[in-house]
Amino acid sequence: MDSNHGPRPLILVSNDDGVNAPGIAALTEAMVRLGDVYVVAPLLEQSAVGHAITLRDPVRAFPVDANMGRATRVYGVQGTPADCVKLAIRELLPREPDLVVSGINRGANTALNVIYSGTVSAATEAAILGIDAAAVSLCDWDAHDYEASQEIAFTVAEKVLEQGLPPGILLNVNIPPLPLSSIKGMLVTRQAHSRWQESFDQRVDPNNRPYYWMTGTFVNLDEGQNTDIAAVQSGHVSVTPMHYDLTAHDFLAPLSEWNWNR
Amino acid sequence: MDSNHGPRPLILVSNDDGVNAPGIAALTEAMVRLGDVYVVAPLLEQSAVGHAITLRDPVRAFPVDANMGRATRVYGVQGTPADCVKLAIRELLPREPDLVVSGINRGANTALNVIYSGTVSAATEAAILGIDAAAVSLCDWDAHDYEASQEIAFTVAEKVLEQGLPPGILLNVNIPPLPLSSIKGMLVTRQAHSRWQESFDQRVDPNNRPYYWMTGTFVNLDEGQNTDIAAVQSGHVSVTPMHYDLTAHDFLAPLSEWNWNR
Repeated sequence: MDSNHGPRPLILVSNDDGVNAPGIAALTEAMVRLGDVYVVAPLLEQSAVGHAITLRDPVRAFPVDANMGRATRVYGVQGTPADCVKLAIRELLPREPDLVVSGINRGANTALNVIYSGTVSAATEAAILGIDAAAVSLCDWDAHDYEASQEIAFTVAEKVLEQGLPPGILLNVNIPPLPLSSIKGMLVTRQAHSRWQESFDQRVDPNNRPYYWMTGTFVNLDEGQNTDIAAVQSGHVSVTPMHYDLTAHDFLAPLSEWNWNR
Repeated sequence: MDSNHGPRPLILVSNDDGVNAPGIAALTEAMVRLGDVYVVAPLLEQSAVGHAITLRDPVRAFPVDANMGRATRVYGVQGTPADCVKLAIRELLPREPDLVVSGINRGANTALNVIYSGTVSAATEAAILGIDAAAVSLCDWDAHDYEASQEIAFTVAEKVLEQGLPPGILLNVNIPPLPLSSIKGMLVTRQAHSRWQESFDQRVDPNNRPYYWMTGTFVNLDEGQNTDIAAVQSGHVSVTPMHYDLTAHDFLAPLSEWNWNR
């Protein structure tokens, strides 16, 4: 950034894989090229926590001496991703950040996975608090090379800082597991319709009591070409605008005809 | 139900306040008037867990000898509300249920609260699995009288069983804390736009280390007359159709103009 353009942006980085995950170090490294970075992330992995917050227990934040990608400060929080963003913005940061970026998640946050995603929930919480935000995921459960994802995260963050997002909107970015030179470009997409075909693996403990492990197979039910899944499968980066209004607006009128007050 | 209409519907009841909460006993009592009821709910309170699921730990289900409102069977689950619904439908119930009802929650699940609500997440999970569902909340944090709410829950469940819901749609029902005779009727509404003004109460533990309690003040930002909050405030039952597509469809076109591939 040219110093004539005023102070450097303040960027909050979080995730759900935990403060020690390689993806958040890679993201931090990319974000310090754009601004001053605070990292506030869960101490422990919080995958699949959805938009949980901690109300019944206190939340603790520990400064971490992480030397992480030249971040200004790094905190590990005993709490969920949404807790991290709330606590960072209300207590830990010197001022309201210009941008919140969550990730780089190991594994896709496309389609139905969004509902369960702690990575997305951190960005959603930022949008709720009125701050521009993006969630960034690398579609590879065994990811170890974050180089392309760093460049994509940089591009997305730079664009959001330039353009700004409307109130209540966040970006959900999913990156195919390819080298940068093989990625075909970026596509604006919608969330695909999908489901998980869960099954429960029932076992018996040494005291002869049953317990279950949840497993599942992901099923894409959406043949549309403009979905997050289709974009990633065709070698593109998927950029989905998301909000947190869950009203099914199309069903308001039909539901009103149910004679509720007959 | 007239026995000429075939077997009684199978209804799954869950919640987030836990299997021992008075609200779920009241709901069960109302639902046995409509069908055979299985109760599968968290052993421990799971408020504000959002749509969390348990992937890293096993889930256990304990039969509870609850004699709860003539339910066929009652299970307490070590897990979240979404876990309960998945496990019930995939493992514990004799067949796919005709309806899932979650509640009766103590406290409103209107506006932004929906995002954090375990009660709503149980119904959302049912919708994801293709089953008609409703979440029912009594807008009173100190609720002890569930009589009116029982009647409302009965009406809602009866209507859903009669009419059926489109795929992916659930109903989120919020009830004002009034006797049935004072409730003015039922209104179909949308989720109000709102926020929480959080603050963190910082304290110091006996070892001189800081910890935080999250507190907050709810702020309604929505003057619309057709919102969930406005309905409840005017003495009506709010019925909001919800879905789990988080795509901000209105922002797809503007976002496409950001020159992503310049």
